[in-house]
Amino acid sequence: MNLDTDRFLQDLDTLRRIGAYKTGVHRPTYSPEDMESRRWLMQRMAEIGLEPTIDGIGNVLGRHRGPGPHLLAGSHLETQNHAGWLDGALGVVGGLALARAGLPVDVCAYADEEAHFGSGFLGSRSLIGALSEEEIDASRNRFDGTPLRDALAAAGLAGLPRLSLEEGRYKGALEMHIEQGTQLENGGLRIGVVTGIVGVRQWLIAFEGRQDHTGGTTMAERRDAGVAAMRLLHAIDTEFPRQCGERTTWTTGRIVLEPNAPHIIPGRAEVTFQFRDISTEVMDRLEATLRALVRESNRRDRCPATLTPLSRAEPAPCDPAMMRALTEAAEDLAPGAFQPMPSGAIHDSQHIARKLPVAMLFVPSKGGISHHWTEDTDRDDLVLGMKVLAEGARRFLG
Amino acid sequence: MNLDTDRFLQDLDTLRRIGAYKTGVHRPTYSPEDMESRRWLMQRMAEIGLEPTIDGIGNVLGRHRGPGPHLLAGSHLETQNHAGWLDGALGVVGGLALARAGLPVDVCAYADEEAHFGSGFLGSRSLIGALSEEEIDASRNRFDGTPLRDALAAAGLAGLPRLSLEEGRYKGALEMHIEQGTQLENGGLRIGVVTGIVGVRQWLIAFEGRQDHTGGTTMAERRDAGVAAMRLLHAIDTEFPRQCGERTTWTTGRIVLEPNAPHIIPGRAEVTFQFRDISTEVMDRLEATLRALVRESNRRDRCPATLTPLSRAEPAPCDPAMMRALTEAAEDLAPGAFQPMPSGAIHDSQHIARKLPVAMLFVPSKGGISHHWTEDTDRDDLVLGMKVLAEGARRFLG
Repeated sequence: MNLDTDRFLQDLDTLRRIGAYKTGVHRPTYSPEDMESRRWLMQRMAEIGLEPTIDGIGNVLGRHRGPGPHLLAGSHLETQNHAGWLDGALGVVGGLALARAGLPVDVCAYADEEAHFGSGFLGSRSLIGALSEEEIDASRNRFDGTPLRDALAAAGLAGLPRLSLEEGRYKGALEMHIEQGTQLENGGLRIGVVTGIVGVRQWLIAFEGRQDHTGGTTMAERRDAGVAAMRLLHAIDTEFPRQCGERTTWTTGRIVLEPNAPHIIPGRAEVTFQFRDISTEVMDRLEATLRALVRESNRRDRCPATLTPLSRAEPAPCDPAMMRALTEAAEDLAPGAFQPMPSGAIHDSQHIARKLPVAMLFVPSKGGISHHWTEDTDRDDLVLGMKVLAEGARRFLG
Repeated sequence: MNLDTDRFLQDLDTLRRIGAYKTGVHRPTYSPEDMESRRWLMQRMAEIGLEPTIDGIGNVLGRHRGPGPHLLAGSHLETQNHAGWLDGALGVVGGLALARAGLPVDVCAYADEEAHFGSGFLGSRSLIGALSEEEIDASRNRFDGTPLRDALAAAGLAGLPRLSLEEGRYKGALEMHIEQGTQLENGGLRIGVVTGIVGVRQWLIAFEGRQDHTGGTTMAERRDAGVAAMRLLHAIDTEFPRQCGERTTWTTGRIVLEPNAPHIIPGRAEVTFQFRDISTEVMDRLEATLRALVRESNRRDRCPATLTPLSRAEPAPCDPAMMRALTEAAEDLAPGAFQPMPSGAIHDSQHIARKLPVAMLFVPSKGGISHHWTEDTDRDDLVLGMKVLAEGARRFLG
C-alpha cells in the first residue's frame, strides 16, 4: 500500500474550487457545477486505472480492474446550498486515495444524498434497487419544483442505464465523513469509529385553518393555523424529552404559513418534523407520542391537523469486523485520540448497509458546523483520518 | 339628493372585472390591473362633473367643482393578493355615488392601503404629510422586493406632484367598508356605525441561532432559532389573554425560518407579530408584556431575541357629530338592524383622522371573510349601506 496523503489533500483543494462559495461550496444536485465535479472525478478515476461510468441517476462508479475481494468506498459530490467543502467530498476523495494506494477498491459518488429531489439518497437507493421509475417520475426539486426527469435530461443523464451493486463483488463498503457534530472536538479526539447510523422518520404535519383579516376577526372567532401549529410544537417540546433516548434528536426544520403576510390570519400551516435514533424501539415510542399529540391537538384545537409520513430510514448498525479493523488502525495511528460513536446524521452507507457490511470513519468538524459554508476540518485531522481509513481497509481486506 | 343605487351596484360589478380572480379580485398596488382601475375611476369622476387628478403616489382625487362645505369620501382600489371584490372598492364607489347624487363630495382612492409596499397606507399618509421622500426611497414590495421608486416609475407615476389635503376645505371624511368580521352577521344586523378605529403596533421579533445538521448536533448543543421562536410565541399565547382588553386581537401572520430545510437546524427565525386595541392604555400594557416576554426569552433561551417596532398606528375615535348623523340615518332606514361598534381593522380613515373629523359605516361580511377571493356581501346590504351613508352625509352637511 502506497498512500499519497499530499495528493489526497490536493484533490480536496481542487474539488472545492468547483462551485466555490466563500470558503465553502454551492453544488446542488445536477447543477452545472455538480456535473462538472462528476466529470472531474471520472478523469481522476481513469488516471489511476479505474474504469469510470456515470449512470442514469448520476452515480459515478470507478471499477477496480484487478481481482477481489473488493471494497466499495465513497460518498457524495453534491452539496447542500451554500454548504461546506468536505461533506461528501471527503468520502469520495478518500475512496480515490485508497484506490490510488493500490488497494482493490471501487470508488463511488452516490447521487443526491443531500435530497435536493424528493426524499434524497437517489444514488445509493438506486444501486440497491430501492428507487422505482415511478418515484423518479414523481420527484421534484424541493426548492424550485423542477421535475427530476427534467433535471436528469438537462444534465445529460436521461436514457443512461442505472447501475446495480454487483452481487458477490464486495467484502464491504467504507465511508469517511466529517462528524457534523462536536463530540470529537469537545472530547479532544481526532477519530470516530462509527458503531451505527441512526434511523430517521420524517413527517409533514399540516393544519387547516381559515384565512381572515387580523383586525376584524375576534380571538374567539379565529381558526389560526399558525397558532395550532405552534401549540403542537410546544407540546412536542414538552413531551419528547420525557420519551426520548440518550442520543435522540428531533427537529422542526421547515415551517410554512399561508399566506405568510403580517395582516392576515394564517389559513394553513405546514411543519416538516423529524426525529432520529439508533434504536427502533425508541423511535416506535416517539412515533406513538407524536401520534398521540396530534390526536390531542385535534381534540383541543379548531384547526384540523393531519400527520403524513414523508420518509423513513431504519437504523443501520456497522459491521463488527470492519469496525474492529478500523479500531485497530486507530489504536496504532491515533492512540488515545479516538472513540466509538453513533452517527446522528444519515449517510449513503445506511442504504448500502441493506446489501453489504458497512463501516464509517469520522473526523472532527470545527465547531460542529456543517451544511454551511464555514464548515471546516484541520488538514492534520484529514490526513490522520485518511491514514486510519487506509490502514483499516488494508487490515480488513487482510 | 338623487341617489342611484342601481348605478352604484353596476359600478361595483364593473370594477370587479378589473383583475378578476375566481369570484374575487387580484389587483396588487401599481400592477397593470390596479392602474387600470385608477384610470376607470378617473373616467367615472369626469362623467359626473368631478375634476380628477392622479398624484405621485397613486392617489386618485375627484374634486367637486361647486361651493362647500365639502365632504371627503373614499377608500382604496388595490386589493390584497387574490382577495375580495368589496374591500376598499365599496368605499370608493360609495363616494362616487354620493357625488353623483349631488352632494358636495370629493372622492378619493387612497393608494396602497393594503401595504404591498413597506408599512402601507402610502396614499392617506401622503395626503396628510406623513410620508417622507426618504421612506419612499427605502420602501420595497414585500413579496418580490421591487423598490417602490421602480414600481412608481413603471406605473407612470414618477415625477408627478403629491397632493396634500386642502386646509379648510372639508367638514369631515367618510368611509364605507365591509366589516371584515362576523359581529353584524352573528347579531342579525345590517349596519355598523363605527365608534373608532383600533390602533395597531407591529413588531419584528428575530432570533439568532446557529445553523447545524439535524442529525449530528445533540439536543444539548443546539441553538435552534425556530424552537426559541416557538417558545416565545407559546408564552404570548399564554400571557396575552390575561393582559388584553375586551376586543384586543394579536396575530403572528408571518414566520420565516432560515434556511427552512427539513434536515437543517434553523439558524435564524423571524416572526412578524402585531396587536390591536381601541385603548392606548391596553396597548401600552400589552407592549410592556411583550417586552417582558422577550427579556424572559433572552434569560432562558440560547438564541438571542431582538424586538424591533415595524409600525405603529394610534387608535382613532370617530367624530361624534358624524356618528350622530349616521346613527339617525340608520334609525330611519334600518330600524333595529344597526349597532355602534369599533373597527378592528385599520383603514385609511385612521390616518385622515389626524387632520379631519372622520366616520365610518360598516356593512356585513358573509362569514366574516375578507382578504380572500370568497369575500362577499348581500346586494341588499350593499344598497342599504349606501342609502344610510348618503342620508347620513346629507344630514351632517345639513
